[in-house]
This record gives sequence, structure tokens and C-alpha cells, in this order.
Amino acid sequence: MNEVKEKGKLAKEVSYTLANVSTEEKNDALLKISEQLLKDKKLLIAENQRDIIHGKAKGYLENILDRMLLNEKRIEDMAAAIKQLVELQDPIGQTIEMIEKENGLKIEKKKVPLGVIGMIYEARPNVTVDAATLALKTSNCVILRGSSSAIHSNKALVQTIHRALEKTSIPVNAVQLIEDTSRETAKELFHLNEYLDVLIPRGGKALIQTVVNESTVPVLETGAGNCHLYIDKTAKKEMAIQIALNAKIQRPSVCNAIETILIHDDWFKQYGIELLEALTLQGVEIYGDERVVQTYSEVVLATDEDWYAEYLALKVSVKIVSSTEEAIKHIHQYGTKHSEAIITEDNKQAQIFLNTVDAAAVYHNASTRFTDGFEFGYGAEIGISTQKLHARGPMGLEALTSSKYFIYGSGQVRQ
Amino acid sequence: MNEVKEKGKLAKEVSYTLANVSTEEKNDALLKISEQLLKDKKLLIAENQRDIIHGKAKGYLENILDRMLLNEKRIEDMAAAIKQLVELQDPIGQTIEMIEKENGLKIEKKKVPLGVIGMIYEARPNVTVDAATLALKTSNCVILRGSSSAIHSNKALVQTIHRALEKTSIPVNAVQLIEDTSRETAKELFHLNEYLDVLIPRGGKALIQTVVNESTVPVLETGAGNCHLYIDKTAKKEMAIQIALNAKIQRPSVCNAIETILIHDDWFKQYGIELLEALTLQGVEIYGDERVVQTYSEVVLATDEDWYAEYLALKVSVKIVSSTEEAIKHIHQYGTKHSEAIITEDNKQAQIFLNTVDAAAVYHNASTRFTDGFEFGYGAEIGISTQKLHARGPMGLEALTSSKYFIYGSGQVRQ
Repeated sequence: MNEVKEKGKLAKEVSYTLANVSTEEKNDALLKISEQLLKDKKLLIAENQRDIIHGKAKGYLENILDRMLLNEKRIEDMAAAIKQLVELQDPIGQTIEMIEKENGLKIEKKKVPLGVIGMIYEARPNVTVDAATLALKTSNCVILRGSSSAIHSNKALVQTIHRALEKTSIPVNAVQLIEDTSRETAKELFHLNEYLDVLIPRGGKALIQTVVNESTVPVLETGAGNCHLYIDKTAKKEMAIQIALNAKIQRPSVCNAIETILIHDDWFKQYGIELLEALTLQGVEIYGDERVVQTYSEVVLATDEDWYAEYLALKVSVKIVSSTEEAIKHIHQYGTKHSEAIITEDNKQAQIFLNTVDAAAVYHNASTRFTDGFEFGYGAEIGISTQKLHARGPMGLEALTSSKYFIYGSGQVRQ
Repeated sequence: MNEVKEKGKLAKEVSYTLANVSTEEKNDALLKISEQLLKDKKLLIAENQRDIIHGKAKGYLENILDRMLLNEKRIEDMAAAIKQLVELQDPIGQTIEMIEKENGLKIEKKKVPLGVIGMIYEARPNVTVDAATLALKTSNCVILRGSSSAIHSNKALVQTIHRALEKTSIPVNAVQLIEDTSRETAKELFHLNEYLDVLIPRGGKALIQTVVNESTVPVLETGAGNCHLYIDKTAKKEMAIQIALNAKIQRPSVCNAIETILIHDDWFKQYGIELLEALTLQGVEIYGDERVVQTYSEVVLATDEDWYAEYLALKVSVKIVSSTEEAIKHIHQYGTKHSEAIITEDNKQAQIFLNTVDAAAVYHNASTRFTDGFEFGYGAEIGISTQKLHARGPMGLEALTSSKYFIYGSGQVRQ
């Protein structure tokens, strides 16, 4: 049997026992992992350096190398995040619904673990610890499949987790890493329906698309964000400019940053130049439609690719529209159903926009940057779901649970 | 553009407007559909007869022909079921969660429609009306792809629905039927991610497996049921036999009927023959392991295929086990995660069984036949989900909803 199947089988077996582990046992294990990370700091940094050196030799870009990097501060942050996770309420075992039937049957719907979670992700080694600890908190087993570029870091982190779990009642195989990072192992995970209950991809658009297209295991799609800001006719100038700048510039590399600004014709005539100047002043490159190009010299003409682009950089596309409906139509054609905002003083337009736009989060007069599990107060975030089944928007611990009906009788049969 | 894409595109457009339709408008439309079904009774029966005659000519089995049949009674039942649906609470627009942040931001999580539902199903024409009305009640558009064997019935039913919708504010294209029932149109639906939000297969195991394996559109898997009854050492004789008979015989063709009985060695020694005799007396064919074959002459030796079989008939497989753990292991190997029951007077064994068995519904001392949306009091049933994401077990209207975050601000930006 190969590595993927073998680890899948093991995970499935362990998952049945994890369903019976108490909140205290899980929290104890999490605290031990947190401590062990701090104890193993030097070792982890040394192993991470092997990946960094290898990455430099391969000519990786500076931002990729930065994502890969583990240093003292980052390890301490991981350890601290686990302590926060311990404080969160354990959803497992909670009663969702209680039905008592006339025949005496008691039907209790409770939250239960998903079972075995497969995680396919790219460079960031912190996903290893994140995924493992969120899974443990919710009594799930996890099979991790990171990228080859971070393999030494990931191996070291999983060894640290195992060293911690050895001191607890939780089997070490609750957390397993696929060490063979060839394409074949990813493909095997796509079809490991026998052992995996869900597959979660974390990374760029290409990775997520591959998983969604190829996997027969149910996928929790986390999100690419081609987010839009629509500035309506009646939008206040200052508010619109402030939100546009915040949503584009405050952290351009994240999925809830905006990529396109749609502007109502009337507003554009009055304040368009001011907005474009403010963006340019902050170093934002602008790709605009013909009207925008004609109005402001530093704008490059946008192509269809620009409207589809998730730049994740100091770039923005700008388009003039003549109504809320036209803005919505554009969003539905090019958007990724993540976060979409309207700035307007007209409540009717706001209502139309919020009700009609099909996205996980819709905003009236606020920055799209708030779409985030921590900002929403969930205390943890598995990712931001852009699909409509199971979970939508920022996913907290709940997203890693399923439900199960427990039915208690005394001999009842159906009439 | 071909039929599937064209209808998909139309459905997507209509779905955006359906999000704004009121409960009253939807209920009005449902009542009109109910009335129209009664008005069109003769026409519907005549069109259905074309399918029946065609089916007879093709040599369909009597039970298939019976599933296809529309008669006065069945049409009246459909009309009555719609009236019941009108009475159910509309989940759309309900607030799930309300978060108020210190910066004044209001975050409201509300229930929203899924959007466009694709439905792929087999012979029963009543699924056409069921799916259309459940979708409408939850503000979803639906694209129906029934089988060629019921095409005249399905066309007539959708025309009836359209005649009713024409008298309402709801666009007739909220309900569309794919009239080309070739394999190609099913395959196109599997990959219509651009327009479909979910695909729901209703029918046999083969159909469901094909959809799960091939579809890139998210699937709501409804259930094959290879359900087990485990009779533990301390089970009361009468209760165990009554439940076994009920779960096997009361309606053998449905997914929540049992297919395998697992019996603890000790119980079998005392009462095994009585149980086997009671089953035989009711015309149930028994496929047993070697011990069972040796004990009772009318038993056929079970093969591995029997343990996997969803007979949906008066057949049952019987196996002797030596512990609850062995029963659970068998269930995990051969079960379909639908409904599983233990009969025992030992609460510890019951706890182990209920907590460890991975299924949508687990029973202690009751018949598995209760796994049903109407029995659970949901008033409607889309199907019984055997998957763990989104919905598990009997699915009511809730299963056809997603959620969306509505965020109201006054210029808030992220710090």
C-alpha cells in the first residue's frame, strides 16, 4: 500500500476514536503542542532554513521566501494562537435540535466531527500548525499535503506536534503529513473518498481550481477574491475615497482587498479625478475603461483580463457604469462571490445591491477588508468560503463540524 | 448555444430576481400550481399514459411502471402536498446571527437561496413537482433533468407549472425542464459550474455514484441506504424481533429499511432460530454467514456482495459477531452512513455504538424506518443526505438555503 492510502486508512481508524475524546483532553493536547513549539524553536528554525536555502537557490521571489520563513516571532505567534484556540468553545457534542415524538421517540441532532480532513496547501508552513490544531479542536483527523518547497519545515512541525501528542491521550496519527510531495500524491487525495470526508485547498487560484475540478472528495472551496467597490451616484466623496484607498491599499495581497472600482457616471464626473489622483499618489497602478483613460493620463486601458484579475498587488481596474444594475451585472460576470461593496446615501440602491449581488459578504458604506474570521469575532479562521454549500464566508470551528441524529427509543416501530 | 447552457443562463438570470420575491408571492404561486394540477388532471393522465404505453412496449418491470404512473389519486396527493408546503415557514431572509462591532459595523448573517438547483432523477414524475415547488418555496430556480422514460409526463407537469406561474409575479423560467434526455445533457449539467449552484441526484445507487464521481458542480448526495440492525447480547427478545421485522418488512423498497442484521453470539444462541423463523414466515430470504447457515436450513451462504447489497426487497443478510466493536467494524466497512441501530439493554454498549458509528442517524432500541423528513417533523423532504457537508440526514427546506453576510456601515475602514 502506498503512503496516501496507508495514512488515509490510519486516519479513518483514528477518527472513530477521536469522536469520543473530551474537550479537556483536546485542550490539554493543544496546550502541549503550543509548549512543544516553543521548546523546539531552534530545531524548527534550522529545518526551515533548509527550505529557505533551497528556495533561494531555486530563485524564488522575495515574497514567496517571506511566506516560507519561520523565525522566533512567527513560532511564538503560532504558539500564542493555539492558546487562544484553547479558549474557544468546543462545538462538538452541542445539541442543535431536540425533537420529542408522541410515540416517545427522542431525536437529538448534535454537532459531530467531519471525520478526516485532507488539506492541500502551498508554501506557508504555518498552515501545517493551523490546520492540525483546528482539526484537533473539532475532533477531526487531518492529512496534510504541503508543497515540496516547505517540506523540511512541515516535517519538523509535524514531528513537534507528534512529540506533544505522545504525552496525551490523543493518538499521534490524528495528524499526518504526506511526505511524498509529487503530483501523484495530490491526485490520490482527490479520489480518496474511502477515507477522506472533506478536502480543503489553501493557496492560489490555480491550486483551488484544480482541486475543485478534479476532486471527487467533497471540497470546501476557500477563496479567490476578485472583490469590487461600487461608488454610486449619491456616495459621499470623502467616504468613497477613504474606503477605496483602505480596501485597495491597507493590505493588497489578501483576498478581501478590492481589485475593481465601479463608478457611477455622475459621481465620476464630479469626483473621479480626485479618486484617481489619490490612488496614484499611493502608488496604485490604474487600468481603466476608455472613459477613464480619456479623463486621466496615467491610466492604462483595461482588457477583459483586467476585469477578471485578482491582482493581489497595488493595481486596480476602474470602470464607469450608468446604474446599480450595470454594476451588479459586471460583478456577476467577473466576480468570485467573495466580498462586494456599495457606497451610497440612497438606501434603495443599497437594498438592491445587497439583496441581488451573489457573494459571501455584501457591504453598504464599509471596506471589504472586514471579511475575516477574527474581525467577525469567530476567534479562528479555517479560510473564507466562496461556495454556497456547508459554509459561506469566514469559516470558524463550526465549518469543521457535521451533524448526526441520535435517536433514543424503547422499542418503537413505524406504523 | 445548446439547450442545457441556454436554460442554465436563463435560470441564473432569473435566480437574481427570485432573491427579492416575498413569501406571499411565493405562496400564491404555490397555491396556483396546486390548483392548476387539479385542473389539468385529464391532460396529465393522458400524457402519462404515453410514457406508460411506451414503457410496457419496452418491457419495463411492473414496479417501474408503478413508479411512473400518474392517476387521479396521485395528482390529488401532489396538489395536497403543495398546500402543506405553503403552510411551512419560509426560511429565506431569516437572521442566523447578528454581530455588532465596537466601530459601529453591523454584521447580519441571513439565510438566502442557493440560487440555481440542478436536479437529475429517474422514473418518478412526482419528483418534477416536488423539486419545483420545494425550490420555489426557498426562492431557488430549478433545472430538471428527468429520465426519457417519463419525458411526456415531465413535459406536461412543467407546462402545468408554467401555466400557473404565468398568473403570478414569478418568471416561468424559475422552473425549466431539459427536454433532451440523452446522456450528453446529464454530462453537461455535471460541469455547468457557471450557472448551477448545486446538483441533486435522486434515484438509484448507480445514478448517484455517477453524479458524485463526475460532477464538478457541488453535489448534495442523497442516499443509498445499506442500513444495519445490531442485536446486542442483552437485547430483549420481543423488542429485537419486532424491530427487525418492522425495519425489514414494513416497506422494503425504501432506503431506511435494513439490509443486514448483526447478532451478538450470546443472543443468537438463545433466540437466533426464533428470529430467523419469524423472518422466513414473512417471506424474507436470508443470506447468512456459516454459523447462520449451520443453524437454520433455509439460509443461503452470504458472499461479500451480500454484505454490500442494498436489496430493497424481502431479503436480508445475517451475521454473528462477538462484540459491539465487531458490529461497528462491519458497519464501517459495508455501510453507506445512512441509518444504523443497536438493540440493547446495556447503556454502555449503546453509548459506544451511537458515538462511534459514522452515520446520519443512529438508533438505540428503535426501528431505522423513522429516518424521514416527515417523521422528524420537517414537513417536507428533499431527500436523505448521506454526506457530511452542508446537510446530513433528512433534508427539509433548510437544506436548500445558503447564508450571506449583510454588513452595514457608515464609512468604516480597517485599521
